[in-house]
Amino acid sequence: MKRNFFVPLTPRGLSNISPPPPWHYAGDFLVIDFWARPDAVASLLPAELQEDTKAEGHAQAYFIDWQFTGEHDELLNPARYQYREFFILVDALFDGKPVAFCPYIFVDNDAAIARGLTQGFPKRLGSVFQTRTFSAKGPAATKLAAGSRFGASASTNGQRIAKGIVTLEKPVTDPAALGSRPTINMRHFPRLAAGQWERPAVHELVESIMDNFTVADAWMGKGELALPECENEEISDLSPVRCGNGYRMCVSYSVTDLKTLVDHSVK
Amino acid sequence: MKRNFFVPLTPRGLSNISPPPPWHYAGDFLVIDFWARPDAVASLLPAELQEDTKAEGHAQAYFIDWQFTGEHDELLNPARYQYREFFILVDALFDGKPVAFCPYIFVDNDAAIARGLTQGFPKRLGSVFQTRTFSAKGPAATKLAAGSRFGASASTNGQRIAKGIVTLEKPVTDPAALGSRPTINMRHFPRLAAGQWERPAVHELVESIMDNFTVADAWMGKGELALPECENEEISDLSPVRCGNGYRMCVSYSVTDLKTLVDHSVK
Amino acid sequence: MKRNFFVPLTPRGLSNISPPPPWHYAGDFLVIDFWARPDAVASLLPAELQEDTKAEGHAQAYFIDWQFTGEHDELLNPARYQYREFFILVDALFDGKPVAFCPYIFVDNDAAIARGLTQGFPKRLGSVFQTRTFSAKGPAATKLAAGSRFGASASTNGQRIAKGIVTLEKPVTDPAALGSRPTINMRHFPRLAAGQWERPAVHELVESIMDNFTVADAWMGKGELALPECENEEISDLSPVRCGNGYRMCVSYSVTDLKTLVDHSVK
Amino acid sequence: MKRNFFVPLTPRGLSNISPPPPWHYAGDFLVIDFWARPDAVASLLPAELQEDTKAEGHAQAYFIDWQFTGEHDELLNPARYQYREFFILVDALFDGKPVAFCPYIFVDNDAAIARGLTQGFPKRLGSVFQTRTFSAKGPAATKLAAGSRFGASASTNGQRIAKGIVTLEKPVTDPAALGSRPTINMRHFPRLAAGQWERPAVHELVESIMDNFTVADAWMGKGELALPECENEEISDLSPVRCGNGYRMCVSYSVTDLKTLVDHSVK
Repeated sequence: MKRNFFVPLTPRGLSNISPPPPWHYAGDFLVIDFWARPDAVASLLPAELQEDTKAEGHAQAYFIDWQFTGEHDELLNPARYQYREFFILVDALFDGKPVAFCPYIFVDNDAAIARGLTQGFPKRLGSVFQTRTFSAKGPAATKLAAGSRFGASASTNGQRIAKGIVTLEKPVTDPAALGSRPTINMRHFPRLAAGQWERPAVHELVESIMDNFTVADAWMGKGELALPECENEEISDLSPVRCGNGYRMCVSYSVTDLKTLVDHSVK
Repeated sequence: MKRNFFVPLTPRGLSNISPPPPWHYAGDFLVIDFWARPDAVASLLPAELQEDTKAEGHAQAYFIDWQFTGEHDELLNPARYQYREFFILVDALFDGKPVAFCPYIFVDNDAAIARGLTQGFPKRLGSVFQTRTFSAKGPAATKLAAGSRFGASASTNGQRIAKGIVTLEKPVTDPAALGSRPTINMRHFPRLAAGQWERPAVHELVESIMDNFTVADAWMGKGELALPECENEEISDLSPVRCGNGYRMCVSYSVTDLKTLVDHSVK
Repeated sequence: MKRNFFVPLTPRGLSNISPPPPWHYAGDFLVIDFWARPDAVASLLPAELQEDTKAEGHAQAYFIDWQFTGEHDELLNPARYQYREFFILVDALFDGKPVAFCPYIFVDNDAAIARGLTQGFPKRLGSVFQTRTFSAKGPAATKLAAGSRFGASASTNGQRIAKGIVTLEKPVTDPAALGSRPTINMRHFPRLAAGQWERPAVHELVESIMDNFTVADAWMGKGELALPECENEEISDLSPVRCGNGYRMCVSYSVTDLKTLVDHSVK
Repeated sequence: MKRNFFVPLTPRGLSNISPPPPWHYAGDFLVIDFWARPDAVASLLPAELQEDTKAEGHAQAYFIDWQFTGEHDELLNPARYQYREFFILVDALFDGKPVAFCPYIFVDNDAAIARGLTQGFPKRLGSVFQTRTFSAKGPAATKLAAGSRFGASASTNGQRIAKGIVTLEKPVTDPAALGSRPTINMRHFPRLAAGQWERPAVHELVESIMDNFTVADAWMGKGELALPECENEEISDLSPVRCGNGYRMCVSYSVTDLKTLVDHSVK
């Protein structure tokens, strides 16, 4: 079993959708601070969290180009494990403590969906892109420098759900500027048996545990974000009332644990 | 909660990756009977199932072009819900009774992954294609007629994992020829907390319940299947020793239930 | 050379992006009549065509699920050759004769792009989907019957460019209702040499030649179409002022020729 | 016309598949030297080129993560313009001068296909991936350092056509090590009119012109490459007899011109 963290459960574990932890990540981040309508934020919080009224609807949009690896050189197989991600974190309170909750997240890779579900990230498929920087200078190689602009977008099922631009102003000197609320998810796995659809097998408020969180080349500046209206999608309910800072940085960390805050799984 | 069967859990449930049951399906099927090495089949069975020695490694490969709908005209949104699927069923025994177990399954749609996980189908992303029939006659419109050939293939992460051809010979007059073993899955959802990776939150042998199973335009003939060797994939361990009949048919059914056979979830 | 119709030019022609003609097609069509602003239609016509003022901006949107084959069973390789397409035809005049011109077309397959470019279809990549009908009855198997609805959508680069619905009312008894204007394209291939960008190597008004055009199972009813505004896309300039009939049918034909009407290639 | 370099030809040129030159590129390169069977290389050369017998079948495989921009901030729209590419260059002679000819190339973006066709690159669609480096240190952030390994792969239509690994040994101190043969393509655009299929409208041997070619962070080491056999693909005819150096570097350049060497277009 040990070599099969998720499914399929196979003799050598090679076909498993995800290797077991430790999971190591490195990625380029575009982050945009914004404020949504507070009632829209509140409507997305699970019962176990409370509205952070002082935050006035504060949220963050993340566009990430990720590289993933487990312990067996998965990074040499980028066709299977490299991916791109877009998600939103909204401010909330847990037991009076400031936290960030993830209501929406989209990735372009199934291993990332599987790992995410076990972490409580409510992942769906999407296509995500961001402007990159390159060390060979030229008009197509956006520089890490004041005035540089990085664009990003996310789509799902052929609809554009998010579009952002970050205009760099200065390096981040105080990493605390990047925020430090713990990330809180609702791990959720339903029952399909008739009459049991509202009795989830797993329904558990959890806190993400990230080891060796490392930031490099962090810049900040102006952030711009749009969450366009899309048919049969609710993410535009969080459409920015106003935007704040934008950030561009490189991040790495590892995941080997998850902390349960409240377990409401129905036994 | 009711409108949110899976994740994300949103106010109106529109953004949820899957609508709640009932789930209705209609699809074009290419099915190929084959025999793998019996030890390869046995190595994929969970402890709760036994090898069906009389079956001598018998298995079936399914390539399906699906249309899905819930109760809210999801079939009018094919960009989100229409999908293609490839899977394998292997013969096994449960309590001495003949059953079919699904060790591998690939789809090109995330709603299908999500529904599948709750049914115990060990779904990963793949690209799946099959030759179609069309009512307007011509060289590109394969007919449902003796001698017609239908091709199919499946790939994952850029590797071709399966390739099949069905050559039609005659209509199926006895539906029993299509097989009637119940489909058995292992519903499995892991824990990520350190030290808990081998104590899955959900580990439950289940039997698929399909209502109003309907077959139309069923033809049978010769089946040919290859499961090529692929790097870091184990599915080729089931590579056919020999192939048998091939089938091409249209199928529809609904899903509103799931039957638990053995619950080994770790509480 | 003969076995290499387009590029790459290889010893056996297998790697060529497209087999040489004859090209055979079979497909499911959703077609929606609509009227755009006449000036928007006129702005898209090449100098060789004239506005059809009596048409009052009439145009048609096509969503097609295609199967393609050449002479070597390409239809058995659907991963490479099966595809989906969305395009628009606008009414125009050539030498006073009613014709239909294609200003926009999107497909999800590169062989289709290559063939299309040689026919003068201005193809780009897109994702296209339509509701299907299936012979096995059930809630997910849309029937060819009065009241049935078929949805369709098209996207490019993650933006939804078109969305349509056809509600069936009755079978088409007079095929002339389906329209009979010849399809006119501008075959265009530029020069890249400095100073030559406005002197295209190929710039040729052409008329599509389709052999053995066959229609089956044609139904007509109400058509609804939206061409949403998208960033950096002009197709929404054709946004419907009003919509007309909708059609759902199966079509097949072959292509082995192309007729040059006006050759403005710069030698 | 000027704003419409290729098709579709639209009033504002926004919908055109490619902006007009100048075209600016920046990209991460993985390059692998290898030797194929000399007869396999020779079989791919157009009549206008001669075999470079001294090269003994030498070729190079390129895997590139590209960022593209024109003059209107196209790099802020990565969903439409950012792309990945795999191609092969084989050594040849033109008028006795050493050149490199491109027989195969695959990209995951239609704007790149369109630009490439005008340059004579025989582009098809494929999916291409390579291991990346990140500035935030950690197990998932491959470093530019001796011993680091970068993997890459390319697939088309669900078949894996190439797989490579570069193991870094040392920085490149002499850029000449990277090679300096001019890149030669066959610009080719066929006629579709009956009887004209072997009389291409464009058939022109061309030399790529790259301005402001810049290399940064170039490392070299050991290269490993496989070109697996694939059904209906000929690229494996170039399967390496042996492999040589591998390179990993960042490159940028601009394109505004193309030089015609021999024009065999049929007027």
